[in-house]
Amino acid sequence: MRRRKYIYFFGGPKTEGRKELTNLLGGKGANLAEMARLGIPVPPGFTITTDVCTYYYDHEGNYPRGFKQDFEKHIARVEKTMQAGFGDSENPLLVSVRSGARISMPGMMDTILNLGLNDKSVRGLINKTGNERFVYDSYRRFIQMYANVVMRVEYHEFENILHKKKKILGIEEDSQLDPRALQDIIRLYKARVKKLTKKEVPQDPEEQLWGAVGAVFASWNNDRAVSYREIHKIPHGWGTAVNVQTMVFGNMGASSGTGVCFSRNPSTGENIFYGDFLINAQGEDVVSGIRTPGSITKKRGKEKGKGSLEELMPRLYKRLHSTVARLERHYKDLQDVEFTIQKGELWILQTRSGKRTPEASVKIAVDMVREKLISRREALLRLDPYQVEKLLHPTFNVGSERQVLAKGLPASPGAAVGRVVFTPERAEELASEEEKVILVRIMTSPEDIRGMNSAEGILTQVGGLTSHAALVSRGMGKCCVVGCSAVEVNYQKKEFRAGNVRVREGDTISLDGSTGEVMLGELELTPPQISKEFYSVLEWADEERVLGVRTNADTPKQARLARDFGAEGVGLARTEHMFFEEDRIDDFRAMILAEDEKKRMTWLERIYRLQKQDFTDIFKEMEGKEVTIRLLDPPLHEFLPEDAKDRNRLAKKLRLTPSKVKEKIHSTEEQNPMLGHRGVRLGITHPEIYDMQARAILEAAVVLLKKRKKIFPEIMLPLVATLEEFEFIHERIVKLARDIQKRHRIKIPYKIGTMIEIPRAALIADQLASTSQFFSFGTNDLTQTTFGISRDDIGSFLPAYTEHFIFKDDPFSTIDEQGVGELIKIAVAKARKVRPNIKIGICGEHGGDPKTIEFCHKVGLDYVSASPFRVPIARLAAAQAAIRENSKEI
Amino acid sequence: MRRRKYIYFFGGPKTEGRKELTNLLGGKGANLAEMARLGIPVPPGFTITTDVCTYYYDHEGNYPRGFKQDFEKHIARVEKTMQAGFGDSENPLLVSVRSGARISMPGMMDTILNLGLNDKSVRGLINKTGNERFVYDSYRRFIQMYANVVMRVEYHEFENILHKKKKILGIEEDSQLDPRALQDIIRLYKARVKKLTKKEVPQDPEEQLWGAVGAVFASWNNDRAVSYREIHKIPHGWGTAVNVQTMVFGNMGASSGTGVCFSRNPSTGENIFYGDFLINAQGEDVVSGIRTPGSITKKRGKEKGKGSLEELMPRLYKRLHSTVARLERHYKDLQDVEFTIQKGELWILQTRSGKRTPEASVKIAVDMVREKLISRREALLRLDPYQVEKLLHPTFNVGSERQVLAKGLPASPGAAVGRVVFTPERAEELASEEEKVILVRIMTSPEDIRGMNSAEGILTQVGGLTSHAALVSRGMGKCCVVGCSAVEVNYQKKEFRAGNVRVREGDTISLDGSTGEVMLGELELTPPQISKEFYSVLEWADEERVLGVRTNADTPKQARLARDFGAEGVGLARTEHMFFEEDRIDDFRAMILAEDEKKRMTWLERIYRLQKQDFTDIFKEMEGKEVTIRLLDPPLHEFLPEDAKDRNRLAKKLRLTPSKVKEKIHSTEEQNPMLGHRGVRLGITHPEIYDMQARAILEAAVVLLKKRKKIFPEIMLPLVATLEEFEFIHERIVKLARDIQKRHRIKIPYKIGTMIEIPRAALIADQLASTSQFFSFGTNDLTQTTFGISRDDIGSFLPAYTEHFIFKDDPFSTIDEQGVGELIKIAVAKARKVRPNIKIGICGEHGGDPKTIEFCHKVGLDYVSASPFRVPIARLAAAQAAIRENSKEI
Repeated sequence: MRRRKYIYFFGGPKTEGRKELTNLLGGKGANLAEMARLGIPVPPGFTITTDVCTYYYDHEGNYPRGFKQDFEKHIARVEKTMQAGFGDSENPLLVSVRSGARISMPGMMDTILNLGLNDKSVRGLINKTGNERFVYDSYRRFIQMYANVVMRVEYHEFENILHKKKKILGIEEDSQLDPRALQDIIRLYKARVKKLTKKEVPQDPEEQLWGAVGAVFASWNNDRAVSYREIHKIPHGWGTAVNVQTMVFGNMGASSGTGVCFSRNPSTGENIFYGDFLINAQGEDVVSGIRTPGSITKKRGKEKGKGSLEELMPRLYKRLHSTVARLERHYKDLQDVEFTIQKGELWILQTRSGKRTPEASVKIAVDMVREKLISRREALLRLDPYQVEKLLHPTFNVGSERQVLAKGLPASPGAAVGRVVFTPERAEELASEEEKVILVRIMTSPEDIRGMNSAEGILTQVGGLTSHAALVSRGMGKCCVVGCSAVEVNYQKKEFRAGNVRVREGDTISLDGSTGEVMLGELELTPPQISKEFYSVLEWADEERVLGVRTNADTPKQARLARDFGAEGVGLARTEHMFFEEDRIDDFRAMILAEDEKKRMTWLERIYRLQKQDFTDIFKEMEGKEVTIRLLDPPLHEFLPEDAKDRNRLAKKLRLTPSKVKEKIHSTEEQNPMLGHRGVRLGITHPEIYDMQARAILEAAVVLLKKRKKIFPEIMLPLVATLEEFEFIHERIVKLARDIQKRHRIKIPYKIGTMIEIPRAALIADQLASTSQFFSFGTNDLTQTTFGISRDDIGSFLPAYTEHFIFKDDPFSTIDEQGVGELIKIAVAKARKVRPNIKIGICGEHGGDPKTIEFCHKVGLDYVSASPFRVPIARLAAAQAAIRENSKEI
Repeated sequence: MRRRKYIYFFGGPKTEGRKELTNLLGGKGANLAEMARLGIPVPPGFTITTDVCTYYYDHEGNYPRGFKQDFEKHIARVEKTMQAGFGDSENPLLVSVRSGARISMPGMMDTILNLGLNDKSVRGLINKTGNERFVYDSYRRFIQMYANVVMRVEYHEFENILHKKKKILGIEEDSQLDPRALQDIIRLYKARVKKLTKKEVPQDPEEQLWGAVGAVFASWNNDRAVSYREIHKIPHGWGTAVNVQTMVFGNMGASSGTGVCFSRNPSTGENIFYGDFLINAQGEDVVSGIRTPGSITKKRGKEKGKGSLEELMPRLYKRLHSTVARLERHYKDLQDVEFTIQKGELWILQTRSGKRTPEASVKIAVDMVREKLISRREALLRLDPYQVEKLLHPTFNVGSERQVLAKGLPASPGAAVGRVVFTPERAEELASEEEKVILVRIMTSPEDIRGMNSAEGILTQVGGLTSHAALVSRGMGKCCVVGCSAVEVNYQKKEFRAGNVRVREGDTISLDGSTGEVMLGELELTPPQISKEFYSVLEWADEERVLGVRTNADTPKQARLARDFGAEGVGLARTEHMFFEEDRIDDFRAMILAEDEKKRMTWLERIYRLQKQDFTDIFKEMEGKEVTIRLLDPPLHEFLPEDAKDRNRLAKKLRLTPSKVKEKIHSTEEQNPMLGHRGVRLGITHPEIYDMQARAILEAAVVLLKKRKKIFPEIMLPLVATLEEFEFIHERIVKLARDIQKRHRIKIPYKIGTMIEIPRAALIADQLASTSQFFSFGTNDLTQTTFGISRDDIGSFLPAYTEHFIFKDDPFSTIDEQGVGELIKIAVAKARKVRPNIKIGICGEHGGDPKTIEFCHKVGLDYVSASPFRVPIARLAAAQAAIRENSKEI
C-alpha cells in the first residue's frame, strides 16, 4: 500500500497541491498551491494536511509514522529553493506557521511569525535588512509569541516587562525603543520564560518549528475555536492544515512595500482594480491603520499624485494588475489579494474570494455573466439571499459614526430616524403633521397597528423576533427593533431610560433594524436602490425556480407592492387587521360583546359591508391570481379595549354600564390565549362571524366577476385540529356559496382549504385532504406547538439556550427540520396520498427565510408566501434551491 | 343464485333464527328466535332483517324483489300457528310491530301495538277477553298510535279530543271513560285523521302492517335516533330489524298477569331469583308504577303472603324459575326477562343481559366462575372498568331524593358532604376542628393544596376535567366537581349563588363526583366497600396482563395506598407539590426571588434537606420497586404569593421592600405560562435547582442502600423538546452521581430518562433514546400541544364542540388515537430502533383510563401509571386488553 502523503510542497513548478484539495490542505494552503501552479510568485513553503491533524487528535498528540522524515525533507527543500538556511547567520530562512481550515476561522487559531530567528540568525537578518531596530523588535515579538502560543506563558508577563522598561526609559510608545533597549528586553523575556517554565525558548529553528506545528494543531480545540465551530456549524472532526511558508518583508526600503487589493470594487461592484498600498512597510502596518495607506491605482483630480503604486512602481503595478486579473479569471470571482514587494520583487501571499456589499455582490454577479465568466446559474448561486435582503431597505451610511445607546433584536431590517413617541395616537398625530416618529412601546398589540403604520420605525422593550411588533413590521417593511431589554419604558413619565441616559418624548433617535442598534440623535440615511442588475437576477431566478412565490398581504397597498416585487398571488390575507381601522373597531367590539345573536347580527351586517369592500380592493390588485383569505383567527379578547375611555365609549354604544362592559371584557381573558378560544374555534362557537366573512369574500368576488375580472378567492380556516371542525365550517360555506351563485347566476371559482398549524392537523392530513382543497402551513403556530414554546415568553430562557447552544438556529426564523419539518413531511405525504394534486404552501414568517425555502423546495411544496419585502428574496432562494437540486441530480 | 332470506320465522320448533344472527335480526329478534329454538314458549312471529332496512334506505323506501310474497307467506304462517285470523271477528290475530337494532336504542324508534284491530276484530277480542272497556281503549290507543307514527298526525290532536270529552262528561281520569264514551272518541279520532290527512286509518290489517313496517324503518333515521347513534358511536349504516309478534295479554282475568324478573339480584349480585309481578295487568302497568307490583318470590317476615307469584301460581312460578335459570345457563350471564301469563299460559316476551350495579357485576362474575359457568377470562371481560371504578369511592344512596342545585363536570368520582368554605385556610381551620368541609373556589392553584387535602370535596366554578382541581383531586381520590358555571362564587361576600339560591359559608352541601351534581343539604353516604370478590378479580387480572401498573404518587401516604391497591412502582412523583408544605413554601419562594446565585444556594440548601427526607420516605414505601421522580416542572410564578400578607412576610425574609417583591413577582408573569419558562427550561436557566433535586434523590437512595434496602430511583426530566436540553442536564446529573457514589463508596442503581410531552420530543425520540434510559409519555401536556388547546381555557368552546360532536371522546380523558396516539406510535417505533429494550410508560391522567390502557397495550408500552384509586382499574383494563388481543390472535 502506498503511504499516505502528509505534506504538500508549494512554490514554483514543483508545487504539489491544487485548489481542489481544500479539504486536505485547507483554504489557504490550496490557494497558495494553486497560485504557484499558475506560475504566480508565491513565497515557497509546504502544507501539512488536515489528515495529520486528525491523526494527532486520534493518537494523543503523536504524529503518523514517517511524518518526521517527510517534515525534515520539506524543510530542506524550502531551504534549497530559497537558497537560505534555517538559523543561518548570513542568509537566514524565516518562516511563518499558520493554521488553515477548510473554511476560514479568522483569528480563532494560533499563528507564529518570523520563526527561525535566534541569537545567530538575527545578525543575518540585520545584514539583509540593514534595519537593526526592526530585527530586534521582530525577535522580541517572536519570543513573546512563541512562549505564549507554544509554552503557555501568559501574555501579561511580557507586557509587564515592556511596561517597566518604558517607565525606566521615560518613554511612552513601543516605537521609541532603540535596539539596545530591545536587546535588554529580549534578555528579560528569556529569563522570565526560563523562570516560569524551567525551559528556554528553543534556539534550534527545527525545534521551534516542531513546537509551532504542535501548537497550531492544539489550537484547533481551544475554547474560542470550538465555540466558533459550534456557532458556524463546522464539524469538529475536520481538523486544520498547517502552512509553513517563507517570510518575505515589505519593509526593506523604498523598493519594498505591501498591500491588499481587489480585482473589482467590493463596495460598488464596479469592474475597477482597487486596493491599498504602503511603501516600506509590513502587512500589519496596512491593517493596523497607523499609517494611512496610499492607493494602488492613480487617483484622479485632487488626490492625484499622492504616491500610488501605479505611479511609484509602474512595472510592478502592471504585473500585480495582470496577476490579479488572471486570478479573477481563474477563480471566476472577485479576488481579495495580499501581496508584498521585497526589494523590487512581487510576492503574492494570499488570494481568496472577496467579501462585498449586497450592491456589489449583485452587480459583480450580473457583470460576470455578461462577461461570460460565469453562467446565470452560477451567478444565482453566488448571491446570499440573507445579504441581498438588505438591498430592499434604507440603511445608514456605512461610514457614519454611531453612539449605540442600547441593542435589541433586529426584527425588521432597514434604518429609521424620528422623534420618540410612546402611544400609537401620538404617533398618528405627529405623523399627520409630517413629523417623522419612532414608536416606542413595551410591546405592541393589534390596537397599535395604525400608530405603527404612521411611524418610521418601532422599538419594543420586550418580545422576540416573531412577536406582534416584529411580524407586523416585517409585513409593513418597516424598520423594527424588539426585545430591547436595556431600554426601560415608562409610559406615565413619557420617557425611556437606557443605562444612565433618559430619552423623553420628542427626542430624536435612530434605529438600525439590521443590527438591532438604537442610537441617540439623527444618523444619515441611504434610501434603498433596486438596481437594474437586481431585476436581471430576479428574472433569471424566475426561469429556474419551481416553487411559486406568493405574498402575505392584509391591505390592497401591500398586495400592490408585493405584485410589483413579483408576487404570484396572496398566500395569506389576515382579515383581523382590517378590523382595527378607526371606522370599524367599535362596531367589531360591539359585535363581540352583543348580548344575543340578534344584536350581534346587526353589528355584523355593518362590518360585512366594510369587509366586502376590503376584499374587492385586494382582489382588484391581484386580478388573475389566487388570493387566500384566512378567516378570523385571534382570540376575541385581543380586540377589546383596556383603556377606560374606550370602554366607556363602547358601553354607551352598547347601552350597557361601563362596569358591565368591564366585566364582560374580563370574562374573555384566558390563561393561555395562544391555546385558547381562537381560530376555527371561534367559527364553531360564533358561526355567524365566519358566515359573514365568507359572504363578504364571495360577494366581493361576484362584484368583480360581473365586470369580467378574473378572480380566484381561496377561503382558509385557521387552527384546525380535527376533521370535524373543518367539515362543520366547510358545509356552511359551501351552502352559502351555492345560494350566492344561484342568486347571481354566476359561477365563483372559489376554493376552501385549511391552515396546518397544529401538530394534530399535520398528523391527520390525509383525513383533512379528503375535504380540504388546499393546505397552507402556518409555521409560526406550528413551531410554537411542536416545541411547546410561546414566542411571547421565550425571552426569559432564550439567553441561556443560546449560551449553551441548545438552539442552533432560531426556530422561529428558520424552520426546525427535525421537528416541525418532520411534521410537514408527514402531512405532505399523507395529503398527497389522498389528493395527489392538492396545492400546499407555507404562509408563516418562515416563508421568507431562504433556508426554509430550500426545505420547502425539497419537500415539494407548491409555493411559499412571504411578506412583500421578502418576495424578491424568496424568488432568489427558490431558484437556488432548484439549481442545487438539479446539480445534485447530474 | 339463492335468493337472500329477508324474513325469519320464530315460535316453536320451526324457528329459523338464532342468537348468533344479532347483526341480521337485531338483539331482540335473535333472542326471541333463540328462546323459541330452546323450546321456551315465545309468542310466534317473524323478524324482518336489517338487510331489508339497508335496502329500504338505498332504494328510496322500496323493498327488495320477492319481499312482498315472503311477507304474506309469513303472516299466513303466524295465523296458522296461532290458529287465529288477521281481522277475524271471532278469534282475531293481533300483533306488535317493534324495531330491533343490533345494539339496544331504548325508546329511540317507533313501536305499534295491537295491530290487527279494526271495527270487526274488536268484537272478536271482546269475545276472547270479555272486557269491553279494555278492548275499546286498546282500539282508541291503536288509532292514536298508528295515525301518529305512520300518518304523522300530531299527538296533541288526539289529546284535545280526549280532553274535551272528559270535560263534557265531567270526569278526570282516562280510566273513568266507559265503553260508550270510548266508542265516541274512536269516531272523533277517525274523523280528525280523515280531515287532516284526507285518508283513513286502514281497516285492512295487512295494509296496517305494511304501514307499520315502513314507519319503523323510517324511524331509524328520526332526529332522536340519529343523535343517539352519534353519541353512542353506532354506525348509521347498520339499520334496524323489525319484529312482528303475536300479542299476548296479561289482563285477561285472575289467571293472567305480567312481570319482569332477573336470574340474580342485579343490585347485590346475590344468586337469588328476583323480580316484580302484577296479576291481571299489562306490561306497561308494571313499568308505569300506577299499581305497586308484587314480588315473584315468597317474601319472608312481615311482607309474607302479600300475593307473590310463588304463592299465587306455584306451578307457573316453578316453570318461570326453571326457564329463567335455563336462560342464564344458556347465555352465561345475568338475564333480565319479561313475561306474560295469558289465561294460565306462560309466555316469555324478551330476554337480555341485565344491567347491574358495580358491586353486583363483580360478585356475579366471580360467582359464575366458581359455578364453572364462565372462565376467569370471560369474567374479566364482563366487567366494565369505567363502572367498576365507582366501587372505590363512597357514593350517595341510590334511593335518596336529590334536589340538584347546579351541575358541573364530574372530575373525580365519589360523594362528599360538608360545610361550604371559600379559602384553603378556612378549610384547614375547620378540618382541624373535626368539621367536614367542601372547598368552593373559582378555580384552584397549587397554593390551595393543603386546603384541598383538608376538604371532603372540591367544587370549582371554572376549569375542565384536567384542570388543577381535577388532577389534584383524582390524585387524592377526593370527590370533585369542576367547571360548574351555574355557580357564581363571590369571595368577598363569602357566598355563592346558583340561580336564585344563595349559599353562604358554613351552609351544608352535597357533591356527587360521579355525576357532577351539587345538592343543598346533607345526603346520606355509602362508604366504599372492596369486596373479597373484587380482590379475586384483580388477582386474576394480574395473571393475564402484560402491561405493568405503577402509580402517580407525590407523598409517602399516596405511595402506600397505591401499593395496597397493587401498584408495582411509582411512575410519576411530582416534586413540586412537596414545596407547598407550610414549612418550606417560604424558603422555596425566597430561593426563586434570590438576588444572586449565592443567596439562592443558601435557600436551596434548606430545601435540599427537606426534599431528601421526602424522597427517603417515598423510597421506603416503595422498597424493591422503581420510583420515577420528575424534577421541578411548573412555572416559578405559580409558587409566588398573590396575597399581600404573604408578600410582605416574604419581603421581610428576603430583606427587600414589599414593592420590590411585588415587582419581582410581576416580572415572572407570562402571556402563556403553559408554553413558557417551565420544565427542563428551568433546569437550564437555574441548573442549581435541578442539581439540588438530583442530589436529594441520590443521597436519599444512599441512606437506604446503606441499610441494605433495595432502591431504584429514576430521575425524569420534564418538557424536553430537544436532545441538547436533555444532554445538558444529563451530563450534570451523571457527574453529580459519580461524585456521590465515589464519596459513599456505593453503587446507586439509578436511571435518567425523559418525559415525552411535547410533539417535538416524540418526533426526535430516536435521538433522545440514544441517551435517555426510559421514556414516560406525559399525555396531558402532549394532548394540549398536539391539539393546541389549553385545558384551562377549553371551557369557553367545549360546549359548542360537544353539541356539534366535534370531540367524540374528551381528549383529556381518553387518548386521542389519531393525533396524540400517532405521535406515541412514532416515538415508540423510533426509540426502540435505537434502544430496543428502552422502558416506556405513560404517566398522564390518561394512564388510568381503560380505553387508553388498551391503546397502551396495543402499542407495546411497558407500563401505565395511574393515580392510586385508579390502580385497580388499570390492572383490570390491562388484563382485558391482553385477553382481547390473544383472542384475536387465535
